[in-house]
This record gives sequence, C-alpha cells and structure tokens, in this order.
Amino acid sequence: KEEEELRQRFMAPPVSGLRELRRRRRELRSRMELLIMETQGEVCRALAALDPGAAFAVDTWERKEGGGGISCVLQDGEVFEKAGVNVSVVFGLLSEEAARQMRSRGKSLKAKDGKLPFCAMGVSSVIHPKNPHVPTMHFNYRYFEIEEADGTKQWWFGGGTDLTPTYLNEEDAIHFHKTLKEACDKHDLKLYPKYKKWCDDYFYIKHRGERRGIGGIFFDDVDSPSKEEVFQFVKSCAKAIVPCYIPIVKRHCHDSFTPEEKLWQQLRRGRYVEFNLVYDRGTKFGLLTPGSRIESILMSLPLTARWEYMHTPPESSKEAEIMEVLRNPKDWVH
Amino acid sequence: KEEEELRQRFMAPPVSGLRELRRRRRELRSRMELLIMETQGEVCRALAALDPGAAFAVDTWERKEGGGGISCVLQDGEVFEKAGVNVSVVFGLLSEEAARQMRSRGKSLKAKDGKLPFCAMGVSSVIHPKNPHVPTMHFNYRYFEIEEADGTKQWWFGGGTDLTPTYLNEEDAIHFHKTLKEACDKHDLKLYPKYKKWCDDYFYIKHRGERRGIGGIFFDDVDSPSKEEVFQFVKSCAKAIVPCYIPIVKRHCHDSFTPEEKLWQQLRRGRYVEFNLVYDRGTKFGLLTPGSRIESILMSLPLTARWEYMHTPPESSKEAEIMEVLRNPKDWVH
Repeated sequence: KEEEELRQRFMAPPVSGLRELRRRRRELRSRMELLIMETQGEVCRALAALDPGAAFAVDTWERKEGGGGISCVLQDGEVFEKAGVNVSVVFGLLSEEAARQMRSRGKSLKAKDGKLPFCAMGVSSVIHPKNPHVPTMHFNYRYFEIEEADGTKQWWFGGGTDLTPTYLNEEDAIHFHKTLKEACDKHDLKLYPKYKKWCDDYFYIKHRGERRGIGGIFFDDVDSPSKEEVFQFVKSCAKAIVPCYIPIVKRHCHDSFTPEEKLWQQLRRGRYVEFNLVYDRGTKFGLLTPGSRIESILMSLPLTARWEYMHTPPESSKEAEIMEVLRNPKDWVH
Repeated sequence: KEEEELRQRFMAPPVSGLRELRRRRRELRSRMELLIMETQGEVCRALAALDPGAAFAVDTWERKEGGGGISCVLQDGEVFEKAGVNVSVVFGLLSEEAARQMRSRGKSLKAKDGKLPFCAMGVSSVIHPKNPHVPTMHFNYRYFEIEEADGTKQWWFGGGTDLTPTYLNEEDAIHFHKTLKEACDKHDLKLYPKYKKWCDDYFYIKHRGERRGIGGIFFDDVDSPSKEEVFQFVKSCAKAIVPCYIPIVKRHCHDSFTPEEKLWQQLRRGRYVEFNLVYDRGTKFGLLTPGSRIESILMSLPLTARWEYMHTPPESSKEAEIMEVLRNPKDWVH
C-alpha cells in the first residue's frame, strides 16, 4: 500500500515518522518533510545509477534538543569523488538572538520568556564528481517556522540550485539555467531573473573578487504570495534538480582529461572550501549551533583540495575563460 | 660596511628603507622592523639549506593605502610542500571600529575626526613539510601602534610559535616546548605557562572539539611591563624559532612513510584549513581588510588537503594517539 511505496522511495524512515506525517498530512510541515525525503531519494537513486560500483552510506542521527536527520554519502566512487545528500528536520526553542540570525532580513521576533518555539527542515546536497569536465552541483531547499509570544507563526522558505564547473561548457551552462528558469516560470516570470541575480550575489568570494561557480538560483526568507504558492514553487525547483544536472554528468563522465586539468580542478576545489568556510551562512550557522551534526554540515567540503601561492592561469587559456565568467557573471538564458 | 651586511641578511630591502631605518634607529618601530626582516632572512636560509633543490620566490608588494611587504614562498620542494615567510609593514588611518577589532581586548580608542593613525608590522610564517613525520610549524610576531586624538600612542605586541604534527613524537614535542620555555624564562618565569595555555585555548577548532596542534606559545595585546622589555621578550622568541623547529625537520625529513600515513596527513591538513578559515583572527581580519594582499594571507593554507565523511581512526592506533593529545592538551615541560 501507500506507506510501503513511500518507504521504498525514501532512503530511511522520515524523522517525524510515517504515521505522524500521515495523520498531519494537510499541514505544510508534513508535506514539506515528505517533499525533502522524496527529493533525497530521487537524487540519490539518480546518482547511484551513474556510479554502479559505489553505494550511498545512509546514516540516521538524532538531535538531543529535538529532531534529527538522514545523511546519505557516496565517497570515492568511479564517477563521484564525494556526493552527499542530507535531510534534517529539527525543532525546539530558539533564543531571540539565534532566531534573528536565522532570518537573513533580521526581522525581530517577540518571544515569550526569551524563547521561541521553532521548526527547521531542509534537504541539502553537494556533488563533487571526479572528472574535471563534470561540474560540482549544490542544492538546498528549506522551510522554517517560528512561533511568537502571541501565538502567531512566522514561516519562510529558502533554497537554490547552483553549478560550479572547473571548465566552462556553454551548452551545459545554458541547459542548467534553462531548466531552472522553466521551473521558475511556471510560477512567476519575475522569479528566475530575481533569484538568478541573488545566486550570483550570494556565492561571491569577496576576497577573491570571483563567484564560486556559474550560479543558478538562490532565494531566502520568502514568505509571499502565500504558503501554498511558495511551497508549489519550491516543489517545482526540487523536481528540476535531476533534469538540470544528471544529463550534464552523463554527457561528460567519460570525457578524457589531462593531469593539468585535474590540477586546475583541485585549485577550484580550494576556492569551494574558501567560500563554504568563510562566507556560507548555512555552514557558519551550523558550526556555531550547539548540538548540530558537524559531519553532515562539512559533508559539503570536497574530498581533496589544493592551494598554490600566486597561481594565475595564462591568458586566453581554458582556465582564464572560466575565471572571466566567475568574475563577470553572464546571462545564460533570456 | 654595516648596510651591506644587513642587505645580505635580508630577503629584500625593508619596506621603510635602510636609510630611514638607520636615521630612526632608536625608535622601537625601526628596531622591530629590523628584527622581523632579520627573522625572515634567518628562517628562510635555514629552511632553504634543508631543501637544496628548491628556492624561495621573493615578492615585494606595496599597499596603496601605505606600507607594503615581502613574501617569501618555497613551493613543492623535496622537503617542504609549502613554506611561506611573510613580512608586512603597513600604516595609514583606521576607523574606530577597525581599531577596536584589531585589539583582542576590544579597548575603545578616541579618534580625531573618526580616524586613527596606525602602524602594524609583523613577520608570519607557516611551514608545511611533505613527510608526514615532520610537523607543520607556524609563527607570527607583530607590533601595533595607534595614535589617539590627544596624541597619546597606544602600542602592543602579539605573537607565538606553535607546532602541528600529523603523528605524535614525544621527544619532538618536549624539545619544541622546552626551547620556547627557555626563551620565555629569560624574561619572566610566569610567561611560558601563561602563553602555553593561551596557545592551547586559541588554536581550538571548536566545532571539532580539538586543537589544531600540540601548541607552543601565543600572546596578544601585550603592553607591559614596558615597551623595551616586551620587545626584548619578542626578540628572544624570534631567535628561538630556528632552534625549536629545524632540529625536528632534520631528524625526520628522511623518515620512510606509508600511503596511509600520507593520507592521515592530508586529513589533518583539512583541519588546518578549517581552523585558519573559520577561527584565525589574523586571517579573518586580513580577508575583511580592503587592500590587503590575499595571496600573502592565504599562503598559510597547505598545498593539498582532504576531507572524508565520518573518518575515525581505530582505537589505540597512532592516529588515535595524536587525537587524544589534540583533545586534551598535555604539559610537555615543567
């Protein structure tokens, strides 16, 4: 029956329990938890199919303060160097300070006795392939609820999907952005341009003057037009992950590459680490949160990375070509 | 003559110019600049002597807002994977906010028209050897001056030397700490215990619950008993760098090692990156300071690093042995 079907589609039993999710199936929290579980399953299955020798290790973990998560990691495969897809569903009480930090706009929230009941859930993933001609992909879709002193609930969604190639392939870039744009356009034609720009602005390594990758979409703190409409938009984005990325992996995972291309990939991995450890809000928030699961947060770091002093690619090289796009983001679809 | 001699001992002409330094030779700023130049030369020569096939690349750079520096980097040698020794001497005007951040105690300073004339100079270095049986070493000695609105000058010193081994070697740990202790004890018997503890507290990777290495000494914001006395102490520390580290490199640089030992070194390098990018005050300050030279700041990162999901060394292994000391720092000398 239905429950059995869900069980097969998920990587592990959901944090809130299938029975509880069914009982509260009309609540957005439950629908979002099912969506992130389904997304985790879909993405893991699509990746595993491309790397038959390797398998996802599945860890379920609990958070003492409330909730838990499911981390799926494939490491050192044939195609993927490190691929992690993580679900977390956590709840409990937040300090006013922590609640303010969670919200990028920094709205103030009124707490009863200084504490705010909250619930935060999301699916997040970073896929680092071995072949330097296959780009790294990251996505994250999340939902927050906070209850204020007077009982009103604040809620918002955040998320995004973005691509970090070692070398520029215009066809891939266009396919990736076009697929995301189509997902956005179903809901509002203004979304893609707005979230594409937000993505370019967010994944900016300020001290290098360059972006982490060629972008995609990014949004945070979205609470309009309505809970249902934003959820439907997030669902479209989540459904677009496999079609925007998997064809690119298939196209290039057997490309031949030189040791020099592998080296350039390693240097770009170093930049990935710089962004994630210095700027990424999610990572920073995670590292500062007591009781958070460090291994799941730092799953986003590549298996290997490299830093060379004063490395500068020669002019008009393929390495200089991608740098140009990282310094000056392009519009890939109109 | 004397000037010729200095020229030979330095890696490049000092930022302030030899003539100017001679003219103002009684001022502490000049004496400190000579000390950091001398330290850079001494350390680079000692390292280069151990890695005859490789050579230090010397870059001098200027800072638009005032001052400049000299970066010496040896990369991909036989013995050293990446060794950088950097001098910087910068001056100009600081905002009250930036001045407060510079000082770890966060003292407030009174500015004229919101701006404070300052001078900051230091020598800093990270040495990452190839062989996993040779530890990484870091040191930094620095001096600050800030002029307040009423003309009074605030000044302070900071610095330290610390060791990050991949595997524990007690003899090396004792030699390293003993040499530092002797340098401290010449000035005040209270210094070593105090700065040893400060070092253990500072180089703490909070999200991992472990220290970066087995410590050494660390101090910041030191402005007593007197400028002259602190300078003499800093000088003793600077003179102790070569004797505390070079014998350890010599002892182990031809040790044989297994691929598993190299892998563990790479994982520990990953932790080094985590500390430097997430916690190190100097690195964070540098990344946020407009006009700072990123390549010199990030010179501290290893050539290569690795992150594995959920890597845990087996009980009673050599890897578990060093982890124990990183979790619970030991007293190496009494």
